[in-house]
Amino acid sequence: MLLAEVDTPALLIDLDAFETNLRLMQESIADFAGQLRPHAKTHKCPTIALAQIAHGAVGVCCQKVSEAEALVDGGVGDVLISNQVVGAKKVARVAAVAQRARLSICVDDPAQVTALEEAMARAGNATLDVLVEIDVGAKRCGVAPGEPAVRLAKLIGEKQHLRFAGLQAYHGSAQHRRSVEERRAAIASAAELAGQTRDLLHAAGIDCPKVTGGGTGTFLFEAGSDVYNELQAGSYVFMDADYAANEWADSGQPPFQHSLFVWTTVMSRTPGVRAVVDAGLKSSSVDSGLPKLADETPAAYVNVSDEHGVIALNGAPDYPLGHKLKLIPGHCDPTVNMHDHFICIRNDRVEAIWPITGRGCAW
Amino acid sequence: MLLAEVDTPALLIDLDAFETNLRLMQESIADFAGQLRPHAKTHKCPTIALAQIAHGAVGVCCQKVSEAEALVDGGVGDVLISNQVVGAKKVARVAAVAQRARLSICVDDPAQVTALEEAMARAGNATLDVLVEIDVGAKRCGVAPGEPAVRLAKLIGEKQHLRFAGLQAYHGSAQHRRSVEERRAAIASAAELAGQTRDLLHAAGIDCPKVTGGGTGTFLFEAGSDVYNELQAGSYVFMDADYAANEWADSGQPPFQHSLFVWTTVMSRTPGVRAVVDAGLKSSSVDSGLPKLADETPAAYVNVSDEHGVIALNGAPDYPLGHKLKLIPGHCDPTVNMHDHFICIRNDRVEAIWPITGRGCAW
Repeated sequence: MLLAEVDTPALLIDLDAFETNLRLMQESIADFAGQLRPHAKTHKCPTIALAQIAHGAVGVCCQKVSEAEALVDGGVGDVLISNQVVGAKKVARVAAVAQRARLSICVDDPAQVTALEEAMARAGNATLDVLVEIDVGAKRCGVAPGEPAVRLAKLIGEKQHLRFAGLQAYHGSAQHRRSVEERRAAIASAAELAGQTRDLLHAAGIDCPKVTGGGTGTFLFEAGSDVYNELQAGSYVFMDADYAANEWADSGQPPFQHSLFVWTTVMSRTPGVRAVVDAGLKSSSVDSGLPKLADETPAAYVNVSDEHGVIALNGAPDYPLGHKLKLIPGHCDPTVNMHDHFICIRNDRVEAIWPITGRGCAW
Repeated sequence: MLLAEVDTPALLIDLDAFETNLRLMQESIADFAGQLRPHAKTHKCPTIALAQIAHGAVGVCCQKVSEAEALVDGGVGDVLISNQVVGAKKVARVAAVAQRARLSICVDDPAQVTALEEAMARAGNATLDVLVEIDVGAKRCGVAPGEPAVRLAKLIGEKQHLRFAGLQAYHGSAQHRRSVEERRAAIASAAELAGQTRDLLHAAGIDCPKVTGGGTGTFLFEAGSDVYNELQAGSYVFMDADYAANEWADSGQPPFQHSLFVWTTVMSRTPGVRAVVDAGLKSSSVDSGLPKLADETPAAYVNVSDEHGVIALNGAPDYPLGHKLKLIPGHCDPTVNMHDHFICIRNDRVEAIWPITGRGCAW
């Protein structure tokens, strides 16, 4: 099937660009002694997780137990839930997944540790790797670095079905600070806090096998820190418009390419002024900005509503009614969450369709 | 099942508030000589469409042919696609639906008229009602009011399987102008343009049975205009935070209640500072602002990421870990599009689960 025949709106992966990104990532961390565990919340798709693992990743991250279930169901054998899971029903599901895959999870409260131990004891004989999340500047989840983390690690170590596996020190809010120096400074501070906490653990006689974190905006800084030994970058496979808006010069970042597009049709037009396309809020998440046109043109996507995107022509020639074009989404993760499939293309032909089995897995 | 047992994130309908809104809408337009055709893009759910029809609506609107299919499959017999549909595959589907339900659709280009006629001729003997959309200020779809609309109506009238059914004159961008006077003025202007176009049609010997438009922000102005005879308001069934932020005093608007909530759990906490809930960008669309807390509290939802919402306590007492609370979404339509079911509650018990069969229907 030709791309031109694919009905819109649809979510496309350009396979050449996607495979380039997989390769560039592995090349860029070739000297890193740790491991890559890309975040699957970007793509929510076991097929892509397995491609990342085939390229050298040790496993993947996800945020929710329902995502972990979708990934393990799809054949992924090693998943970190890089988040807290709260509530008896969900914790029982965590314990069930831990019986059939290598699963690890984060905590930031003693009550989570107790709940996980009880559920794991009830579910079987497996041991669950548990990481303590520390807040290294994101001001979201995590205990304070230092003694609070040591106390929680000790508690985990006392539990029969849990194993203290290390620290999660992800600095989410640093990923989109636009200047390289801001991002570098944020991760230097995060690494210092994580390193101090690791040293306190060692001083208390507690082994800290892992310090995990890093996103597409900063992973080379974590990799160069001598503290982190696992990287969680995920968006690099797609490179959305928001990441592209970061400054990258002299960052060392490889030239990741846009590989994810929303395929859309011009369905109304006001000649000389605007075109209206059929991809709006239900096709591309605008939380991090409007989508961009993939083609080089003075025209721009300037307004969005549920089912419409307004493209101001800005002097560009009129698009014919029915013309199809590619949009680069502002934020890939929640955009992917709106679609059931990736339509994978190469040389303007459909090569594969990959189900997004983690779509809607928010619980 | 008790509400307290419902796992999170989940999308709730408070049935008492929902039914109040259905009743208030019908009472508020009791003197209106025209009809109500609520927009189903709000809820994407045939069960709700049928409830609206049972309360007096003539049928519903939707934006996409896939939504029309979901509604007709769910037993709705009268649907207006209040939008243009472009592309041979989609137009063939429009013609197929028109064989099994009362369907109408909008156009703003002669090529759409030709495509619809060809598809209808191929599909069977049914006649499709076609409305000409005019741009009354929204600067999105629609031909200019006046002669361009008359020319398109004439073209429709020449087609064997199409019937010119009137004008769509929806002023989308007026709905959220905050002051009553701005909204009133915008609709006065829209009604004038629509009325002039209707008069031109009559002068050309073309009957114009319908002028349709209006949203939750303005429908009483359209109802009072002597031009519009069909109202498309839809969000009134749910009343999201963005509509609640409009000024309503002296507008005549009945006191619609919030009936749609995102049910969420506190899954991390920094005592005295913040709580983090498990409903983020995948559970509530933030295109029109962050969700609000349903309870009266100084605490506020201040930051969102894919799977997290950060609640600043602002002096409110700490939430316990595992505490569940209700959020009022900023924008109901794209929020509904993220969920597969409504969990319908009354007196803190689950009374029904309604599938959102139009979820993801963007094509």
